[in-house]
Amino acid sequence: MTAPLAGYTILDLTHVLAGPYCTMTFADLGAEVIKVEQPGLGDDTRAFPPFKDGKSAYFATINHGKKSIALDLKDADDRVIFERLVARADVLVENYRPGVMERLGYGWEALHAAYPRLVYGAVSGFGHTGPDAKRPAYDMVVQARGGVMSITGEAGRDPVRVGASIGDIVAGMFLAQGILAALLDRDRLGKGRKVDVAMLDSQLALLEHAVAITSVSGQPPAPSGARHPSITPFETFHASDGLFVIAAGNDRLFEKLCIALSLPLSDDPRFATNPARCENARLLKRLIEAVTLGDTRAHWIAKLTAAGIPTGPIQNVAEVLKDPQIKARNMVVDVLDKNGRAAYFAAGNPIKMTDNPDPPTRAPAPDLDANRGEILRWLDEG
Amino acid sequence: MTAPLAGYTILDLTHVLAGPYCTMTFADLGAEVIKVEQPGLGDDTRAFPPFKDGKSAYFATINHGKKSIALDLKDADDRVIFERLVARADVLVENYRPGVMERLGYGWEALHAAYPRLVYGAVSGFGHTGPDAKRPAYDMVVQARGGVMSITGEAGRDPVRVGASIGDIVAGMFLAQGILAALLDRDRLGKGRKVDVAMLDSQLALLEHAVAITSVSGQPPAPSGARHPSITPFETFHASDGLFVIAAGNDRLFEKLCIALSLPLSDDPRFATNPARCENARLLKRLIEAVTLGDTRAHWIAKLTAAGIPTGPIQNVAEVLKDPQIKARNMVVDVLDKNGRAAYFAAGNPIKMTDNPDPPTRAPAPDLDANRGEILRWLDEG
Repeated sequence: MTAPLAGYTILDLTHVLAGPYCTMTFADLGAEVIKVEQPGLGDDTRAFPPFKDGKSAYFATINHGKKSIALDLKDADDRVIFERLVARADVLVENYRPGVMERLGYGWEALHAAYPRLVYGAVSGFGHTGPDAKRPAYDMVVQARGGVMSITGEAGRDPVRVGASIGDIVAGMFLAQGILAALLDRDRLGKGRKVDVAMLDSQLALLEHAVAITSVSGQPPAPSGARHPSITPFETFHASDGLFVIAAGNDRLFEKLCIALSLPLSDDPRFATNPARCENARLLKRLIEAVTLGDTRAHWIAKLTAAGIPTGPIQNVAEVLKDPQIKARNMVVDVLDKNGRAAYFAAGNPIKMTDNPDPPTRAPAPDLDANRGEILRWLDEG
Repeated sequence: MTAPLAGYTILDLTHVLAGPYCTMTFADLGAEVIKVEQPGLGDDTRAFPPFKDGKSAYFATINHGKKSIALDLKDADDRVIFERLVARADVLVENYRPGVMERLGYGWEALHAAYPRLVYGAVSGFGHTGPDAKRPAYDMVVQARGGVMSITGEAGRDPVRVGASIGDIVAGMFLAQGILAALLDRDRLGKGRKVDVAMLDSQLALLEHAVAITSVSGQPPAPSGARHPSITPFETFHASDGLFVIAAGNDRLFEKLCIALSLPLSDDPRFATNPARCENARLLKRLIEAVTLGDTRAHWIAKLTAAGIPTGPIQNVAEVLKDPQIKARNMVVDVLDKNGRAAYFAAGNPIKMTDNPDPPTRAPAPDLDANRGEILRWLDEG
């Protein structure tokens, strides 16, 4: 059993979320990830709550299995070490503001000239080109400017943020994909590439349906609360003890749903087709809830599942972490502390792959500069 | 200039969104993508609104640049063609319910025995293992069950769906990453792998901060509307003409914000640190809005941007598509019709890469079976 990225070395100059998320996925696929951190404080998220035993759980759950060396890239001795690392690495990843690496003498052009096989991955708020390239951004700024907030929330109320940091994470995922594509090509042809991913661009890339609607109608879609904007029924419904989801995405599923709920609606012209159901969505919701309010969520989820209708609970994060399917997929892993004890849990690797080790634990996130000696020895042996 | 995936052939048996999104990103990186569709109707989304000139804009914006051949995988003659295609392909991607490919005789084990170099990528609602493997799922079901809905929306109100279909798209992105990692390894060692991505797993993988909080406190986080749950100020604010975003993610940025707004708060113990600001978030919001209500969004965004503070508008999708930074990054592309005229627009490729062509147009999405003759000739030449 060998991980697919075994033997690849990632030099990781990133901090906070988008970049570290990208390199975490590389570690889960078997790459060696060496975090190069600023002496003193290191990655900002080492100071982010929540803490356990004085250490940031936030940092631990995104940086497990990486190594750390603290280098001052303005210091002559540290620059020598850094350049030896670059010479040995397959990939350099950074998420500084555009221009920072150039000022250090380590911009893409300089590195590419000196290390032509190196793949250079950068993630930033707005990308390395365009009028706003040098502006700072955080997740919330690109969620707002990139359009996803405008379609998330209840109609007639203020837009809301997506609870997960998709502004960062999705950009980190596109960066990971671009780097792997560049490595495939580098391994064949010997020449590295620069990959430049913007958080703002990545938000637009998520809006497929909303872009198609705007393209055809000229009208941007509004938020639609807990329902899909153009499929009905595809939303939350009240049972006697709370909300659950029914997603009957086509006529066949709607017919099955009517049978399961003993509602004679599938031949009714007001509900016979998806366009008609969208037109009469509020009435349909009331007719369905007149039935579903009569029993519990668990009852309806079991009954509809048996009938082959996509349905499910709305789970909070504690419930998700105990979900039997999530457990069976090894999607909750224990992050160990230095004594080998489980200290935190974290999301597992969603990329399940034959012959890739998928252990139920993860090595600890490194203390700042924890692997300096080991890394220097590795350089000397190289 | 050569695209990084030039020369790779992807056999694409997917339909609707998660799978087609994955293979769209491969096409944008230069792979040849051959859609194998069911005769008669083809990909379900060919019938999805909105339409233009009788064609689905939804289908067009996700399947541009692919080729199409219609094959009945239960028909003996079509199976011969299909197997010749598999023999020539680098990757097969499918998003059927687990078990469907096995019943056709084309499950991973059978294909791996016959075509050991083939990489096999599958995306499904719950994955190919675990108690719920065979249940049907749609985006909404995994958004609900996977936890993201529980942290999206306003406190005290019902949870809402993320307006973008991240249940599908994020799974398609993890699948793309897994396939590329498997290809890297295949190119070195000659052996393909199976990649098995679940939409449910992928939702959990997005919840980094919420998982860390739950891990340490045992308490799952609640939705926090338009603000970040543990950074303040990092939310929407009212100007005289509507809402905009300020994301002052650390003390230094908060100090700059106070200067820019002429608010003497950065030494006030109620606001001097992020934990204190979180504690007094509602009061701080009122103090900031007492200033920001006095002028327009455009005024404040310009002023705060000049001061180096992350800020921005909340744009609807039509506004995003006209955003100068988005335009400068070639993030809105024209999808052509068969006559070479721009018919729709779509999101561009967010993975910007040196030497990867990034044209402002995309070839049309194929009509069903449009490339049959060309594909059969390619097989004969091979």
